Amino acid sequence: MLECLVDGEISTYVPASNRGLNYGDGVFETLLVSNGQPHRWQAHMDRLGAGCERLGIAMPPQAVLLREVQTVSAGLAEVVVKVVLCRGGLARGYSPSRDAGSVRIVSAHQLPTNIEENMARGVKARICDLRLAIQPALGGIKHLNRLEQVLASSESFVEGVSEGIMLDPEDHVISAISANIFLILEDRLLTPRLDRCGVRGVIRSQILAACSGRCEQRRIQVDLLHEADEVFICNSVRGIVPVIGIDDHEFSIGPVTRELQSWLRDGDRA
Amino acid sequence: MLECLVDGEISTYVPASNRGLNYGDGVFETLLVSNGQPHRWQAHMDRLGAGCERLGIAMPPQAVLLREVQTVSAGLAEVVVKVVLCRGGLARGYSPSRDAGSVRIVSAHQLPTNIEENMARGVKARICDLRLAIQPALGGIKHLNRLEQVLASSESFVEGVSEGIMLDPEDHVISAISANIFLILEDRLLTPRLDRCGVRGVIRSQILAACSGRCEQRRIQVDLLHEADEVFICNSVRGIVPVIGIDDHEFSIGPVTRELQSWLRDGDRA
Repeated sequence: MLECLVDGEISTYVPASNRGLNYGDGVFETLLVSNGQPHRWQAHMDRLGAGCERLGIAMPPQAVLLREVQTVSAGLAEVVVKVVLCRGGLARGYSPSRDAGSVRIVSAHQLPTNIEENMARGVKARICDLRLAIQPALGGIKHLNRLEQVLASSESFVEGVSEGIMLDPEDHVISAISANIFLILEDRLLTPRLDRCGVRGVIRSQILAACSGRCEQRRIQVDLLHEADEVFICNSVRGIVPVIGIDDHEFSIGPVTRELQSWLRDGDRA
Repeated sequence: MLECLVDGEISTYVPASNRGLNYGDGVFETLLVSNGQPHRWQAHMDRLGAGCERLGIAMPPQAVLLREVQTVSAGLAEVVVKVVLCRGGLARGYSPSRDAGSVRIVSAHQLPTNIEENMARGVKARICDLRLAIQPALGGIKHLNRLEQVLASSESFVEGVSEGIMLDPEDHVISAISANIFLILEDRLLTPRLDRCGVRGVIRSQILAACSGRCEQRRIQVDLLHEADEVFICNSVRGIVPVIGIDDHEFSIGPVTRELQSWLRDGDRA
């Protein structure tokens, strides 16, 4: 961790009574920040606000969060900033107090090292053994209850395989462990519906908006992966990453993936 | 919070990089402690150890935890002590580091005020709208991913109703929001199987052991509640609490519930 603010004060500590710690009672965002300017700021704030709304957590003013993101990233060329927002109040008893506000933890971290290489060459993946539970009350929200992702990350990956693809109990593809997934079939983009599990990623939402005429959110049975012409995963930090294999099935890196990578890069430069 | 130790040091703060805070990557116990002596210590340690084993979290020596429980409760007649055990290592990326150990947060809290009254008179309950997701990888474990319980506790309860009964998506009774549940039907004790969701409570395990000849763990359809002669809920802090109503259905407080309350009280005195 490079820098950290807790409720706007320089600190790397939070109270042991914090509801995020005791219950995972909170939401978070992970942003790419270049020279103090967060990429896709409004999209991140919209998602954070939507998560807060569904969980009944108080959303702080965006201007406060923006100032804190800029403070922790000041003087750093390119960093990842994590914004964690926990429900305020104490953690004795699950029941939330009304009007307890929220606790902000804003921290800057170094970028992963292999972003460019992964975008260029793609990554190999496997299907995780662990299935994501179906919980419509939490589906789509980037909340702090992430034990499923921790357990999936703990599964053994063979040499050269760096990604896990997660299914629900009904054999639907949902996402990678920490990225959304798209399939390209005959020039159409397909991505899983995330109403029952998974996280609605910011890049995913922007692709859906930009490609609305040729993109569909639907239930995707795992067998459909074998029919895909291209597969890619995406998140805010790593951008759009081609998937060149899932278990024994290989994919080539195709024109739609390359086109969307260029589109995202142009957007980032704009 | 009356007293708190973090990794054995007097502190009420944990690092913002803590994996419990960022992912709910940990387990916990809530113990009743009288004059520095924790009730049902070995049963709590057994459950904590089982949770650690399943999640791959390092279990500290029991003697270390016991000393810390006794330190935070020293000089206090009767308190609740919460032991939170988070996976060690940093929270940048879901993947756990090997050999990162664990972080111990041991804190003392005042007892709820209405324990005796609830045990004597019973409580009214309703069926929660929120369903517990089916996740066999986490079923039975007292882990820190508790958003479902927070959301269930946020539902509106009518005057006089203090408990929520939680179902799974297939209309099986699982538990109260923070207690296990038993039904008595013709002198047999029934309690839900907790292999797919819910927490295997310490009092529940002790009742199962003590009443093995007349007790059964099984799937319990919600309709079966109407046929029960008695219903009670139980947890380590509140003991055995009769349920006198669930939604519009009323129950009387019966002899099996009273017998088990006496048995638990005698055990606590021993």
